[in-house]
Amino acid sequence: MSRSARKEIEPDLGILAGRVLLSVQREVVETLAAQGHERIRPKHGAVLAYLDAEGSRATELAQRSGQHKQVIGTLVDELIDLGYVRREPDPDDRRAKLIVPTELGLDQMNRSDELLALIERRLAAVVGEQAYADFKHTFQEIATLRQQAGQGG
Amino acid sequence: MSRSARKEIEPDLGILAGRVLLSVQREVVETLAAQGHERIRPKHGAVLAYLDAEGSRATELAQRSGQHKQVIGTLVDELIDLGYVRREPDPDDRRAKLIVPTELGLDQMNRSDELLALIERRLAAVVGEQAYADFKHTFQEIATLRQQAGQGG
Repeated sequence: MSRSARKEIEPDLGILAGRVLLSVQREVVETLAAQGHERIRPKHGAVLAYLDAEGSRATELAQRSGQHKQVIGTLVDELIDLGYVRREPDPDDRRAKLIVPTELGLDQMNRSDELLALIERRLAAVVGEQAYADFKHTFQEIATLRQQAGQGG
Repeated sequence: MSRSARKEIEPDLGILAGRVLLSVQREVVETLAAQGHERIRPKHGAVLAYLDAEGSRATELAQRSGQHKQVIGTLVDELIDLGYVRREPDPDDRRAKLIVPTELGLDQMNRSDELLALIERRLAAVVGEQAYADFKHTFQEIATLRQQAGQGG
């Protein structure tokens, strides 16, 4: 059997994670484009998926998304140009800056959170509520194990 | 509770898929860099993870990876420059080209397949063999459902 045929039958963890991420990102980008957010790209999720309504520091966004702080800085610059976020002084630390969502940013964040919840409800309805809950439980355990492995070296 | 605190406790499917993909890609890139493949980047996985030893067409690689054919073409050009693949005439269709791995490409493909299998054995040992098998089963079902949803519109 060819390598690709074998992987089609038994895809590895990286292939499955990649396929699901890509398809979820595409549905979010396409659905939100039809709702007025046509300039948002999948890469912007590294900021918008992790941003708090009250604002977040760039270092926090880097930690949460697993992206380098430099990548986050570039994405924030783009999102400022697109009108989704502002940089403001952090009231807790005058030397630091907070990334704060605008009304447009908050609208995107709320809509994408709702869409993700809908996507998961649809999947759970097909694979079964208990099977989906078990899947999410193990997935979260694996994500935590992988993060620990990454921090350990 | 803040949005980010809520997502930390109950990450959605997109966040989990993104975290696991990023950590697997990083381990593959770092481990293989130490084994002589220091110029391979995560993005090259869209070609190298799906390539057959006998060669594959760009359209097949686009289908398998979910990337656009234009993206695949750019990655193939880079991998040709890096010495990992060649473009050859397809013996089954004179107008078509096959992307064929070089010896260096085959070495990368074998090493990354082995590393993925090792990563999965390590995870299964921690979360439990049965729990891991159940997780993979549901993940594959979800990836298939998502692909069908994507094709449907």
